[in-house]
Amino acid sequence: MQSNSRQVFFLSNGTAITAETLGMSLLAQFPDHSFQTHTTPFVDSPEKANAVNDDINRCFEESGQLPIVICTMGDEDLINIIKHSKALVIDPFGDILPRLEKALAAQHHQPFESHRTVNPSLYESRIDAIDYAMLHDDGGKMQNYDEADIILVGVSRSGKTPSCLYLALQFGIKAANYPITEEDMETDQLPEPIAPFKKRLYGLTTDLQRLVNIREERRPNSRYASTNQCRFELRAVEEMYMRHRIPYINTSRMSVEEISARIIRDNGLHRIELT
Amino acid sequence: MQSNSRQVFFLSNGTAITAETLGMSLLAQFPDHSFQTHTTPFVDSPEKANAVNDDINRCFEESGQLPIVICTMGDEDLINIIKHSKALVIDPFGDILPRLEKALAAQHHQPFESHRTVNPSLYESRIDAIDYAMLHDDGGKMQNYDEADIILVGVSRSGKTPSCLYLALQFGIKAANYPITEEDMETDQLPEPIAPFKKRLYGLTTDLQRLVNIREERRPNSRYASTNQCRFELRAVEEMYMRHRIPYINTSRMSVEEISARIIRDNGLHRIELT
Repeated sequence: MQSNSRQVFFLSNGTAITAETLGMSLLAQFPDHSFQTHTTPFVDSPEKANAVNDDINRCFEESGQLPIVICTMGDEDLINIIKHSKALVIDPFGDILPRLEKALAAQHHQPFESHRTVNPSLYESRIDAIDYAMLHDDGGKMQNYDEADIILVGVSRSGKTPSCLYLALQFGIKAANYPITEEDMETDQLPEPIAPFKKRLYGLTTDLQRLVNIREERRPNSRYASTNQCRFELRAVEEMYMRHRIPYINTSRMSVEEISARIIRDNGLHRIELT
Repeated sequence: MQSNSRQVFFLSNGTAITAETLGMSLLAQFPDHSFQTHTTPFVDSPEKANAVNDDINRCFEESGQLPIVICTMGDEDLINIIKHSKALVIDPFGDILPRLEKALAAQHHQPFESHRTVNPSLYESRIDAIDYAMLHDDGGKMQNYDEADIILVGVSRSGKTPSCLYLALQFGIKAANYPITEEDMETDQLPEPIAPFKKRLYGLTTDLQRLVNIREERRPNSRYASTNQCRFELRAVEEMYMRHRIPYINTSRMSVEEISARIIRDNGLHRIELT
């Protein structure tokens, strides 16, 4: 345990994805502070809640600083146990649910089941999109591009695969990706497999040093990872984007989440319905 | 626009992932209500905030019901614009940040940048894990199983691939998957490629009707999708799990998020550090 970091706990009786997502956004507001985070999902019994309290209290005693607890627990008995810990306990549901109940003139469902209920058609759409992304990764199965919602293009290691997978998993969007190779750069034409789908193309690019670093990790001291080669490829691909009016973004300082959100916005893509 | 559904807006000046994740968890508390959701990321200027207000107000006028707005906006000027809309505006940051500021004795950073700042080592870990999952999907490249954090096993279409990808993308965990085929079921032994890694195996299974439905969509009227074949495979694979003491879960009523969270918990896996 780092003694100068503030200890932060993300708790839930479910997957704790909500507590963690909200919590990380909140902590990002304090870039000058150092945090050490602990995620504990499935805190779904008084015994487990008491065990977590012991962890939190030990943390307080060892560090001498009040731990921060972000707890998205729908079960009131469980949150009440957590509230007895020596910590700043943040309970967003406790703050928000009463207002929603009033607006909806309804009682909320107990106990809390957020990520547990599965909408089967939502699941199917995601699985279809994942199948599609897997089959159409890295220039695979190019004959099916007419089914793609979007085709990401870019040089090797510019972030195409993670973006396609995230678009599929999170949003049910069918995203293919096609790697622009040196051969493709020798001509002014768009590569043959993607030329008919120009309106669905979206380019990724990245900073030179970042590309060098990423490639160097894969193939140290190779021509592939050399500064000259990376510079040549990035220039060529950005020229290609401009010549053919393919919209593109520089992904260097972006998370996979942000790249995906921008792709959706810039292309007006329809994502699966959440409800 | 469905007239009997309550309209819900998820807004942010960033990706809106936090607003959406929190919002969907909140709505899940009201299973008897019908909602129609709208996600608007990158509301990062007064012009865009005013345009969103127009949408919200139009919604109110058309439906006659107060829309619900979940808005994770760190910029106070922008949230103040949104608060003028005709809606129940929920502003979790406005409620929580002052308490965190007090606990940390700090001012939070303006404007809000949550998903924008990228921790490069975090990014690298995720990319490594994604590369690993792609190479080791569906029994690919079995000689590298010693690098796997976990190896998911199960019959075709039991949810192995999406779970591996989610574990990689979200948690930076190296997850391989190996499909149990009819050949593997003919013997009492574990399949040769996975036998040396018994402690890293984790089984997936699913309900019969669900497997039939999923397979039927892929290969209609096939032996592969027949009730008899699916029943045989599920029985054989569950027997295999029990004979070899491989822990397993039934994924039928679980989201990819929940399957992944359970795999992490049941196997004590270490995920990438968030901070």
